[in-house]
Amino acid sequence: MLPKALLELISAISALPGVGARTAERYAYFIYQNDTGAGEKIAEAIKSVKINVKICPKTFAFIDREEKVSRLYDDPGRDKKTIVIVADPFDVIAIEKTSSYKGTYHVLGGLISPIDGITPDSLNIASLKKRVKEDNVKELIIATNASVEGETTAHYISRLFSAEKLKVTRLAQGLPIGLDIGYADQITLSKALEGRRTI
Amino acid sequence: MLPKALLELISAISALPGVGARTAERYAYFIYQNDTGAGEKIAEAIKSVKINVKICPKTFAFIDREEKVSRLYDDPGRDKKTIVIVADPFDVIAIEKTSSYKGTYHVLGGLISPIDGITPDSLNIASLKKRVKEDNVKELIIATNASVEGETTAHYISRLFSAEKLKVTRLAQGLPIGLDIGYADQITLSKALEGRRTI
Repeated sequence: MLPKALLELISAISALPGVGARTAERYAYFIYQNDTGAGEKIAEAIKSVKINVKICPKTFAFIDREEKVSRLYDDPGRDKKTIVIVADPFDVIAIEKTSSYKGTYHVLGGLISPIDGITPDSLNIASLKKRVKEDNVKELIIATNASVEGETTAHYISRLFSAEKLKVTRLAQGLPIGLDIGYADQITLSKALEGRRTI
Repeated sequence: MLPKALLELISAISALPGVGARTAERYAYFIYQNDTGAGEKIAEAIKSVKINVKICPKTFAFIDREEKVSRLYDDPGRDKKTIVIVADPFDVIAIEKTSSYKGTYHVLGGLISPIDGITPDSLNIASLKKRVKEDNVKELIIATNASVEGETTAHYISRLFSAEKLKVTRLAQGLPIGLDIGYADQITLSKALEGRRTI
């Protein structure tokens, strides 16, 4: 009953995480009827993001195409001997917003989850080991969610470095259980940073 | 802290109805990291929808670019003397899915809402008057939401045609099938009481 092009747009939008049929219809209708270029902006931004955004080979945070390494690593004000370990690149932004951290980051690209087929090998863990050695890292601060996957990943990393002379800490359990790090407010995140404990 | 192209994508996506900053980030990250072409599909579908989807000049429902008038109007099996009046084109699909209606449709393109500056003049109402005359319409079935705007629009249309020899009806309001009475809101229950029928 709907034109083919519209069905295709609804189907394409449905691929987005958490978007059901009715939501996809609402977005598609908005895009169709909006005449101030909102749809075109999205289309162009999608193409641009694929071209202009890269992943830092050191930290795996987002960087601009022209950058070689993230400024969160390169900046002389950054303490390379301290690394906050997070699951995804947006968690970096959340922690940066607290303005209370001056070390660097390492984005794992996910959390260990055998059910979803995500093993340590599919995460950025080999590169973490390399950084720890190269930069003579003194502390790893694990900032994963307080979820089963977050805990599993934290324990895996802590065991992995147990033989080495470095502190492995975890954000304080001031984080409410079940809350995604990206949703946490800045004060909660600051407190969690302050109260980190050896594991 | 985020690359410019990513910020632009997040900002473009935030224009979608009901999408806040965190949801836009989630969509943008998904689009960025998906490597099976989900993002490209959305971008192409947006461009295609702008080219290939039109609005039927009679019913204001969606039609393909090659179509002149909606099949929901043109089809000889459709009774042109009965019109269901809806706010947006997706409401047409919802009613078609019932398979229990064989008349035609008229999409208003919104609901009267003085607060949002939506007056009867900005809706497809003049064209409805024309259709009523041309097709010798016998019944208008108003299928707008049970909201303030939906009620206002229903009353406006019913008054508009009060002098003419045609029936103006409104979808029955009452308890949705399967809803426990204990969970029904007061307005729904009031409407269900008002509209009670002899059994």
